Amino acid sequence: MKTLAAAGILAMAALTSSTLPLHAQAAFVNTLMPQPAHLTTAAGSLPWTDSITVGVPRFHDQRLDDAIARTLEQIERKTGVHRQRSISTSGDSTLVIDVDGAGEAIQSLDENESYTLTATPSKVTIHAATVVGAMRGLTTLLQLVQTDGHTFFVPAVSIDDSPRFRWRGLMIDVGRHFEPVDVIKRNLDAMAAVKLNVFHWHLTEDQGFRIESKLFPKLAGEGSDGLYYTQDQAREIVAYARARGIRVVPEFDMPGHTRAWLVGHPELSSDPGPYTIRREFGVEEVAMDPTKESTYQLLDAFFGEMATIFPDPYLHLGGDETPGTQWKNSPHVVEFMHEHNFKTTEELQTYFSQRVLELAKKHGKHMVGWDEILNPALPTDAIIHSWRGAQSLYDAAQRGYQGILSQPYYLDGMKSAEEHYLADPLPASANLTPAQRQLVLGGEVCMWGEHVNQLSIDSRIWPRTAAVAERFWSPESVTDVDDMYRRLAVESLRIEALGLTQITHEGAALRELAGTEEISALRTFSSALQPVPFGERYRGQHTDQLTPLDNLVDAIRPDPPSRHQVAMLVRDLLKSPKTNTAARPQLKSIFQAWADCVPAVEAQMNRSPLLAEARPRAQQLAGLARTGQQALDYLSGAKKAPAGWKQAKLAEIEEARKPQVLVRFTFLDPLHDLVNAVQ
Amino acid sequence: MKTLAAAGILAMAALTSSTLPLHAQAAFVNTLMPQPAHLTTAAGSLPWTDSITVGVPRFHDQRLDDAIARTLEQIERKTGVHRQRSISTSGDSTLVIDVDGAGEAIQSLDENESYTLTATPSKVTIHAATVVGAMRGLTTLLQLVQTDGHTFFVPAVSIDDSPRFRWRGLMIDVGRHFEPVDVIKRNLDAMAAVKLNVFHWHLTEDQGFRIESKLFPKLAGEGSDGLYYTQDQAREIVAYARARGIRVVPEFDMPGHTRAWLVGHPELSSDPGPYTIRREFGVEEVAMDPTKESTYQLLDAFFGEMATIFPDPYLHLGGDETPGTQWKNSPHVVEFMHEHNFKTTEELQTYFSQRVLELAKKHGKHMVGWDEILNPALPTDAIIHSWRGAQSLYDAAQRGYQGILSQPYYLDGMKSAEEHYLADPLPASANLTPAQRQLVLGGEVCMWGEHVNQLSIDSRIWPRTAAVAERFWSPESVTDVDDMYRRLAVESLRIEALGLTQITHEGAALRELAGTEEISALRTFSSALQPVPFGERYRGQHTDQLTPLDNLVDAIRPDPPSRHQVAMLVRDLLKSPKTNTAARPQLKSIFQAWADCVPAVEAQMNRSPLLAEARPRAQQLAGLARTGQQALDYLSGAKKAPAGWKQAKLAEIEEARKPQVLVRFTFLDPLHDLVNAVQ
Repeated sequence: MKTLAAAGILAMAALTSSTLPLHAQAAFVNTLMPQPAHLTTAAGSLPWTDSITVGVPRFHDQRLDDAIARTLEQIERKTGVHRQRSISTSGDSTLVIDVDGAGEAIQSLDENESYTLTATPSKVTIHAATVVGAMRGLTTLLQLVQTDGHTFFVPAVSIDDSPRFRWRGLMIDVGRHFEPVDVIKRNLDAMAAVKLNVFHWHLTEDQGFRIESKLFPKLAGEGSDGLYYTQDQAREIVAYARARGIRVVPEFDMPGHTRAWLVGHPELSSDPGPYTIRREFGVEEVAMDPTKESTYQLLDAFFGEMATIFPDPYLHLGGDETPGTQWKNSPHVVEFMHEHNFKTTEELQTYFSQRVLELAKKHGKHMVGWDEILNPALPTDAIIHSWRGAQSLYDAAQRGYQGILSQPYYLDGMKSAEEHYLADPLPASANLTPAQRQLVLGGEVCMWGEHVNQLSIDSRIWPRTAAVAERFWSPESVTDVDDMYRRLAVESLRIEALGLTQITHEGAALRELAGTEEISALRTFSSALQPVPFGERYRGQHTDQLTPLDNLVDAIRPDPPSRHQVAMLVRDLLKSPKTNTAARPQLKSIFQAWADCVPAVEAQMNRSPLLAEARPRAQQLAGLARTGQQALDYLSGAKKAPAGWKQAKLAEIEEARKPQVLVRFTFLDPLHDLVNAVQ
Repeated sequence: MKTLAAAGILAMAALTSSTLPLHAQAAFVNTLMPQPAHLTTAAGSLPWTDSITVGVPRFHDQRLDDAIARTLEQIERKTGVHRQRSISTSGDSTLVIDVDGAGEAIQSLDENESYTLTATPSKVTIHAATVVGAMRGLTTLLQLVQTDGHTFFVPAVSIDDSPRFRWRGLMIDVGRHFEPVDVIKRNLDAMAAVKLNVFHWHLTEDQGFRIESKLFPKLAGEGSDGLYYTQDQAREIVAYARARGIRVVPEFDMPGHTRAWLVGHPELSSDPGPYTIRREFGVEEVAMDPTKESTYQLLDAFFGEMATIFPDPYLHLGGDETPGTQWKNSPHVVEFMHEHNFKTTEELQTYFSQRVLELAKKHGKHMVGWDEILNPALPTDAIIHSWRGAQSLYDAAQRGYQGILSQPYYLDGMKSAEEHYLADPLPASANLTPAQRQLVLGGEVCMWGEHVNQLSIDSRIWPRTAAVAERFWSPESVTDVDDMYRRLAVESLRIEALGLTQITHEGAALRELAGTEEISALRTFSSALQPVPFGERYRGQHTDQLTPLDNLVDAIRPDPPSRHQVAMLVRDLLKSPKTNTAARPQLKSIFQAWADCVPAVEAQMNRSPLLAEARPRAQQLAGLARTGQQALDYLSGAKKAPAGWKQAKLAEIEEARKPQVLVRFTFLDPLHDLVNAVQ
């Protein structure tokens, strides 16, 4: 038994590392992510040694001091330079952080996040109007520190940077699967690393009510299986986020998606219950009763209590997917609709939206809601959060509403970073006036919780979200996908160094599946695979909240690095199939590694019932890898394809596309192109 | 560029997996760790499916219910069987947990941890006198669940189990480097997995005072760099430990190792200070002033406060390494010694020990202290914790003191699991009466904090500590090292599944060092290496608390799996060097992989200043691997070694043993044996 596990990945790495100079003369290699708005480079560099001194000559506070200390510690770890603890107020320091003032007491939409960073061979100066701006600059500084193999240094650059969009968010659904405090914290660290500024915390769902209410202890007490955040923990997370320049926008989804509320408070519904926590996923029939004043009384008190935890001026109240079935079946609700002349349950939901919007306002909050809340009666200070598509966002803008876009950024769609990256929230082509364009605040990446747990969540969010973070921050013109992937590989390691598990998870999960530390063949197999999208998984495996997420699909990575690298190699090769000598041997060795891993993988599948599910893909991989090898031979002109080969192989590829198991191949499109190019 | 990264490890895995039957007819494979006191097997097995029902027919409480739920969740994850939430009180269930009562309100030395587990093809019954005993049985149940490749099942066994020693501990020093709450929690999970029952929490050191005192807020406030546990967090950890049948024994080391106390309370010393947190390691000259009543007044109040957090009847007060220099230089201390007729500072320390022991007693605590506290005046209800060796433990026992052993279990010595495993705290040969033997309570593994941080600590503690846990629990006769390593490999994966990072850390750290995801060559290189012991590192690299722990030595694992496997292969081969056909090809492929990885490793060293430190080992590895290959050839009889070859190669091996860098080879002893066997 023998595999060439490493060969494939090695070949890919060669591509990446060939773009990095060896022993360069302190030349600047741009690995910044997101790309700054304006960057110019100059000759020379500042060596990073233990003689670096740090000064904050003007404003500083605890938040700034902590941010500087964190950044220095990260740089020290990267460079091995002994920890630098003393920070002076001297402007003559080699690293000067020059800040006008604290910024807003509660970070708003309009917080000034801009900064300039000037590095010369003798000094680095970060200037910012606010502490948040300085933090963005410190993040850039960390990304600038590089090595030529001998020393570490900051290359001479001049950066003038500010974000394109004001709202750059990540939503995490902790309702369907709970995520512990440390998972949230490390994801906030990673968000800050790529300059995201809104953590949208989806705290309640049919499957779980995740925040302690002292006024209504039965909400989390009976609606969470004991898995919820105490108010102290929630405050700790809000403070942790603020320390990193991140707003926390809590979401209490209503009137649908509320079954977990009803376990402890069935009176919130039009049907007396009793209710249990929903284990199934999908749209639930039950909803809050919009006709009772007691519903609004509870929400009033609850919003007031939550306002003491969440200082952000925005409150997300969901509003999506309320089927109205329960309402239609409830005589008093039907009567209420008659009285109010509501023809549809949508009109009843609008009434509910207006009532809760008033309550939000009473507690000093603007309301954010999903597309469904948009209707002619909605006041224009509500923000529309579009999960249905950019068009509904632009429609809303044309009607005067601010909006944020999420539809192209659903991580459970298992799309590539490339696909997310190229989806612009506000392309030049959008049919909006300049004033309407201002209403598009930005976007949010959405991590829905059906198929993630605390072990796998990092690997679903990162590194893909870093690519979207660049979309939200950098100029619209920054769209070079190959360059994005080159930098994303570096950023992913920076994120890992913060304690994220997006890379390590795969190995740990494969070891668990295989029951051995020996997983090199499985790793090679996994490098050709990615999880199927949410819908396909849900159809292929009936999952609910209690399904152990312990299959191969949970182990492997969405958009693994090999996907883009194979696509790139094939694209290069097909430019000159006969004469190309760079891509061919690399592709050969990748296909060889894939073919070679199959026997060992099948042997492990024989020992592991959970791995065995993916057996069809192992069988297919051996054939597909051979097809790739053959295509390379035919394209080189050394041999000629026999009659019927091409048709047969294109059919083989189509066969391998069929949904069959919970994992799919990453390389069928480029393989198709290779085969199709054979004469 | 090409490596056979996987080949070596694969070859090793072949050995391991060959001991596991493929598609066995539900045969029992013993992967229990620790081994139970009594085990008998029978025919048949109970399939683990979603038709398993769970019952607690007699006593149950929240602690038991939670332990059952945790175990079931672990089994569900392992087997993929949908979560089983309902637990009945029916004795007719397929899994019955039959418990007499809660056990002690505060777990004592004498808590009954015994249990029986009987598995038949129709039912598993765990019986225990206490909830702690039931938890030990549940841990065994998890370890019993296995697969034949098709299904999961519990093999029919009958187990009657109880621990050999009452005190089975792990000490973690959080003074020199702080460890966050979640690091402590996951280590408690791992401790419970191998039936350890004492978490010794070394909370104060010259380099940090890590527990909040509300009475003396300056202790942690000024002595910790802000890195300390709040009282709430400490209580949370005590509760978390109790939920897993683990006692928490806090240590406040005194009168030496106390510089961090003096930052906020310089009056505790005989010298007015001021003091700063010590950054250097090694023995500090300052100590508490034993002559002042105010010292004892503060300690009295502090012990009283800590007693509200730590309910355990034992309090560890350190007492080690107090050089007395500061005392000798202090006129009022010298005068005090004259007055009391103390000839040495040791006698003064004895006086201090007696005073603090009285204070401990006042707050209902027995005192534990390191060897140095042992003196004729010490009351026999103190426990001697031996860091100097077994002999001092036996001396203490002969004088009537209870004791626990740690000297052979210092993890920073970077010894093999084998070496720790074979060190028995109380061998039959110990010259003690039966009554004196009873005084040897057990032992503690010690994780000192100079060279570990939150990233690396799991990899230093685990899996080696699991081998020691077996030493503390299982009968003295359980000493088969090969079998221990076979089971340790399985246990390590179980521990990883709890969220421990002992395996993933290496990859993450290597990626950080190399600046790329492509680390297969580095992994192969690392498989031949282990960290140097504490003292050698300290001499080779002057470290202090602020040194970033980001070198190769921090990445690689102590006693990596390859070490024992190569030793085993060489041992097998040398039994019949000419005719052995099993070990030779495996060793060949390991040596080949090591030789092959060197060019890629050296290329990465050229790009990474932090990796470059280990360059001499890369150069040596290429030569040593070639030597191994040659030795195999000569031993096969196919070729004959040229004159002088053996001497030259033995010299090469000796050269490679020299301390030079912070990592050393794992395989020089077996390689020496190989070369030496060549005629």
